[in-house]
Amino acid sequence: MTDAAPRRRSRGGGGAARRAERTSVKIETAKYIERNIPNYEVLTEEALEVIETNAETILEEVGVNFVDNPAALDRWREAGADVQGERVRIPRGLARKLCATAPSEFTQHARNPEKSVVIGGKNLVLAPVYGPPFVRDANGGRRYATLEDFQKFVKLGYMSKWLHHSGGTVCEPTDVPVNKRHLDMLMAHMELSDKPFMGSVTEPSRAQDSVDMCGILFGKDFVQENTVMTSLININSPMTFDDVMMGALEVYAQNNQACIISPFIVGGAMAPVTIAGTLTQVLAEVLAGVAYSQLIRPGAPVIFGAFVSSIDMNSGAPTFGTPEASMVTYGAGQLARRLNLPFRSAGSFCGSKLPDAQAAYETANSLNMGLLAGVNFMLHSCGWLEGGLVADFEKFVMDADQLGALHGLAKGIYMDENGQGMDAIREVGPGGHYLGCAHTQANFKTAFWKSNLLDYKPFEQWEEEGARDTYKLATSRVEHLLATYKQPELDPAIREALVAYVAEKKASMPDAFM
Amino acid sequence: MTDAAPRRRSRGGGGAARRAERTSVKIETAKYIERNIPNYEVLTEEALEVIETNAETILEEVGVNFVDNPAALDRWREAGADVQGERVRIPRGLARKLCATAPSEFTQHARNPEKSVVIGGKNLVLAPVYGPPFVRDANGGRRYATLEDFQKFVKLGYMSKWLHHSGGTVCEPTDVPVNKRHLDMLMAHMELSDKPFMGSVTEPSRAQDSVDMCGILFGKDFVQENTVMTSLININSPMTFDDVMMGALEVYAQNNQACIISPFIVGGAMAPVTIAGTLTQVLAEVLAGVAYSQLIRPGAPVIFGAFVSSIDMNSGAPTFGTPEASMVTYGAGQLARRLNLPFRSAGSFCGSKLPDAQAAYETANSLNMGLLAGVNFMLHSCGWLEGGLVADFEKFVMDADQLGALHGLAKGIYMDENGQGMDAIREVGPGGHYLGCAHTQANFKTAFWKSNLLDYKPFEQWEEEGARDTYKLATSRVEHLLATYKQPELDPAIREALVAYVAEKKASMPDAFM
Repeated sequence: MTDAAPRRRSRGGGGAARRAERTSVKIETAKYIERNIPNYEVLTEEALEVIETNAETILEEVGVNFVDNPAALDRWREAGADVQGERVRIPRGLARKLCATAPSEFTQHARNPEKSVVIGGKNLVLAPVYGPPFVRDANGGRRYATLEDFQKFVKLGYMSKWLHHSGGTVCEPTDVPVNKRHLDMLMAHMELSDKPFMGSVTEPSRAQDSVDMCGILFGKDFVQENTVMTSLININSPMTFDDVMMGALEVYAQNNQACIISPFIVGGAMAPVTIAGTLTQVLAEVLAGVAYSQLIRPGAPVIFGAFVSSIDMNSGAPTFGTPEASMVTYGAGQLARRLNLPFRSAGSFCGSKLPDAQAAYETANSLNMGLLAGVNFMLHSCGWLEGGLVADFEKFVMDADQLGALHGLAKGIYMDENGQGMDAIREVGPGGHYLGCAHTQANFKTAFWKSNLLDYKPFEQWEEEGARDTYKLATSRVEHLLATYKQPELDPAIREALVAYVAEKKASMPDAFM
Repeated sequence: MTDAAPRRRSRGGGGAARRAERTSVKIETAKYIERNIPNYEVLTEEALEVIETNAETILEEVGVNFVDNPAALDRWREAGADVQGERVRIPRGLARKLCATAPSEFTQHARNPEKSVVIGGKNLVLAPVYGPPFVRDANGGRRYATLEDFQKFVKLGYMSKWLHHSGGTVCEPTDVPVNKRHLDMLMAHMELSDKPFMGSVTEPSRAQDSVDMCGILFGKDFVQENTVMTSLININSPMTFDDVMMGALEVYAQNNQACIISPFIVGGAMAPVTIAGTLTQVLAEVLAGVAYSQLIRPGAPVIFGAFVSSIDMNSGAPTFGTPEASMVTYGAGQLARRLNLPFRSAGSFCGSKLPDAQAAYETANSLNMGLLAGVNFMLHSCGWLEGGLVADFEKFVMDADQLGALHGLAKGIYMDENGQGMDAIREVGPGGHYLGCAHTQANFKTAFWKSNLLDYKPFEQWEEEGARDTYKLATSRVEHLLATYKQPELDPAIREALVAYVAEKKASMPDAFM
């Protein structure tokens, strides 16, 4: 029932012994997914060319807006764009040419080197939900998120075998002033987990704090030479790049830190209601955004992002796990690969208010699609509820368990002699059974992916044990994980320096809540 | 909240008027899915050739058993196989050669010609769960299925927009003697629905009853010239063809009626624990079974079946919606297409005891995989629960709603001028929104697939209305559909003849309950 396997040792006294004990806690984390399966491609070569041509037409004829950002306008003018007011019209081919300096894959380092991830290629890195102002669990119901909730999610993420990444704003710690909470969030990721994480993007100064704190954690020189954060830069679709997000992007690109450059699209509201129209806009926006990152620093690592939902035309609510969002994602994956850029999309998306069957259908639709679409970085891969308004504790561990199935699928089909299993078929023959045969005995431990959460018990046993549904099983699992959590070792000097940085920064400004 | 839209008309008196009223009930059924998307193919050409070569090796060296069926052994001997006892060894290439006379697609006629289906090619025909001895709903809990339950499921299937097929043994009517229940089941499909259906396979004589009753419903000549049933012939894996199933197959093939020839595999028990090994056995079994059908009657319509689950090596329970079953299905689809045969696999598979999040994750995993694997006939596409032991009323409508999403996915991406949406992007421009633009207005009604069951409401409204989860919404929907069900028109003379046939058959034999 747990994917965390703490080694129990007898305990000595004093700080060193306590540290040794913490070091001895062994949390198993799967390596990021290296796909041994093909990508699912829905667009023909001809269709791809139409969309690429149309995206260039949009950039050239319609252009994009860089708002409240005169320096950006200067950079574009200098690069050869036609700048009128805040509108930037980019000559055909220029944006794609600028994108060419962005790397096709990059390593994001974790403070535990075993947990560093390579983003791009055939890989898939899984990170948790990002951004919800609310949390929910079965015991406490739906409520505003606090720093304590945030810390719990970081702990759960650390203990999840299938999550490769600690994420960023797993929920908004609304009890901390808005201008200071990024410091506490970064501290939690750095102290409570040893997986890679994301930086703040809500002000350029907070991006700088993120870089500075990483300087303490990893060493300043290491940060300048290596990527230690991947942060989320949303484009204000349609085709608007605001100064806050661009300011954060500028800080990260200057410091060689990675950004996901991501159109944020509710289809029918922020993009055309058609799939090809949405893909055209997504491509135009990403081309402009990635090109801009390369104007800041050629070679800065970036990810082609696409956050896509559709809309319920009756209620205006965004909808998730829908066919149209899947088709956009499959298509966007193809477009990203033709740009040689890592691709971010999909997640544990759902519109449901509870982690019920609706949540699971919609989430499974999106997770499966994300794997087959060739996504390289999947933000929101667990814990998302209610259109992203809520980070749900039970759903976090339910989804995290399903991420194991993605690891299983990505293995593909082994075609070696053992995989072919001819000896087994010969040995068993018509009417026999395979349970006891040598081939089964040799392979059964790794042959089938197995949930650590879901119910596989006989009906009678399940009923005797309380006839628990998935929700109840998940509540137990959350409680068990939090009760057995142990913090990963962190050099006390580094920890003290981080605490001091946070305290100093907090003291330097008044609280802000808007 | 309903996908059935009865037209309300004022009501006259008398039988004719009642019939007219019944005729006026308009139940919308979507056309079977015609995919405009590619199949997902995981096996390379080289891997496919290895599996095909290995399957021929199995047929030639190991062979298959035809049990208690001397006539079958004679047929195989005559065709050139090496027959020793009940073991049939098939020379390399013979089975594949015999399979060549089977059609690559065929029409299964419904009594309402608008609901006839074409099985094969790029099509996907969806049929409900098959075989459970138990039923469950929120009000009545888990219990043995009765004929009344069976009839309710047929009604729900008739009213579902996304189900193209009425299925067969939607649940086992355990209150009817085992030697007579097929008559009541057929009667229910013929009278309570006008969608295509399946015949009985539990005795050759019951297959003959199915053909004879279809003779009454469709006309004897029509049945001889056309396919009006698709029935499920399971292979007793590994590599055993029992006399009951083969007897039913013989009846159907002689009468030009379609059979799904389907290995029934719990991986690790009835087939090797490896994916390639399972695929090899599946192919060998289907080759032998389909070849046999063509020995009965060349050109008899058949479907390449693959029922595949994996096993939980701890409890021995079959598991569903797992990565390994998905990989087998993707691979089997490729093998079926290389044989030019329609393909049956996937379904609303789950191991859960309740229609909860586990059920939905596992089901969505399997439904999505089935669509992308190129499945042509998906039995069990809704209502399956607890490893197939239970047909669940709420899950039936929950899954049936998700089948709508498969229809949406299969549409693919429209690349015409309207699809490209360039005018919309030009009209809206940076910072605008698309809700009111001309392109959105022209397309919004059909742009996005929309659930008829799931919750898209704002949180506050959802809470005011009782904070219902998917299960509760589904209970309401089942009740609503059954309350508004109206029987489709059936010629009273045909109905009387069917009733007389059933009565006569029932009177001709004592009840049997084993």
